[in-house]
Amino acid sequence: MKTILPLTLVFWAFAVALRVPTQAQAARPDQPTYSSDGKLVRPADYREWVYLSSGLGMTYGPAGTGRNPMFDNVFVMREAYRQFMQTGTWPEKTIFVLEIRRAETNVSINNGGQTQGGMVALEVEVKDRSRFPETGWGFFNFGDAPNFQAAAAALPTSATCYSCHRQNTAVENTFVQFYPTLMEVARRLGTVKPAYDPAHKVQ
Amino acid sequence: MKTILPLTLVFWAFAVALRVPTQAQAARPDQPTYSSDGKLVRPADYREWVYLSSGLGMTYGPAGTGRNPMFDNVFVMREAYRQFMQTGTWPEKTIFVLEIRRAETNVSINNGGQTQGGMVALEVEVKDRSRFPETGWGFFNFGDAPNFQAAAAALPTSATCYSCHRQNTAVENTFVQFYPTLMEVARRLGTVKPAYDPAHKVQ
Repeated sequence: MKTILPLTLVFWAFAVALRVPTQAQAARPDQPTYSSDGKLVRPADYREWVYLSSGLGMTYGPAGTGRNPMFDNVFVMREAYRQFMQTGTWPEKTIFVLEIRRAETNVSINNGGQTQGGMVALEVEVKDRSRFPETGWGFFNFGDAPNFQAAAAALPTSATCYSCHRQNTAVENTFVQFYPTLMEVARRLGTVKPAYDPAHKVQ
Repeated sequence: MKTILPLTLVFWAFAVALRVPTQAQAARPDQPTYSSDGKLVRPADYREWVYLSSGLGMTYGPAGTGRNPMFDNVFVMREAYRQFMQTGTWPEKTIFVLEIRRAETNVSINNGGQTQGGMVALEVEVKDRSRFPETGWGFFNFGDAPNFQAAAAALPTSATCYSCHRQNTAVENTFVQFYPTLMEVARRLGTVKPAYDPAHKVQ
């Protein structure tokens, strides 16, 4: 007993130091988690991930549709972000979360412009060649707030997100042209797609 | 020698596990760093902190000043965020970064609304009673992009940010009413100021 306690402590200290996974970490925070029927489990803690950028009222089709403009916020996993900052590319298993929020006016002392309100929708893109051998990337829609699905099947590859991302993104399958802190890294490291044309519009 | 090496390893493992600062961690990532003349060192890695929210064209004074609307993004340190989610209050030494960015239109395939562009300004708020015994909070302006100051002295307490935050913020000295994910926590935990009036406007 005299030796067991110190050895246990030493193991625990090393386990923390070396980030050895314990049972409680079965769902790795740096990997997508899929349910037994192949659905992607909705990331629980993405608000602690790295924020990439926001837009307000972004419209890829014809402008001026009369819809209330909404905010979009994009988040990416921490480790993937760090690798991108070093290499200009995304590692396999990278997850992106797109959050859509209402735009509010005149909240509290604000008299002009817009601030963010409640959630509207939650969508995810995953780089995972082992799961999506055809496209290399999967897209998921977790439905509408407040009743988000706990897990979502990948959208069919006929969904427009697949073709739009493939044809119009600046770096790999991601809209880095809308993330100013990443675009300058991609330019510096030469990972912007040769075919990327900043003047190109969707037909 | 035989006993020194294992003991060193054990100390190192415990040091990492318990986050005992080593020499290389003199500037703790979870604490504000001040220069020898009392200036706040500009946080280098705040884009890896937790994102709170954004606004576009926020105006506390009279609306419609004709200025181009700009995006603001607010970030807070990870540990402080986690404590807020548990308690609805901010720990001492919490740092908030306010980033102002240009709003761009018609970037790439976007035909409507705005996306974020280059940096315009960088401001910081710190909760630090030991440094600011009078106010409990310090405000810092690191100047205009791209020539941000490496370190900035606290603004004088006559600056409007001190009185505006004191009088108009929903939780402590922070505009939690503009951060939807935090406001619901503060409401649930009862840390919204009793005097906070969501209908109040600045005179």
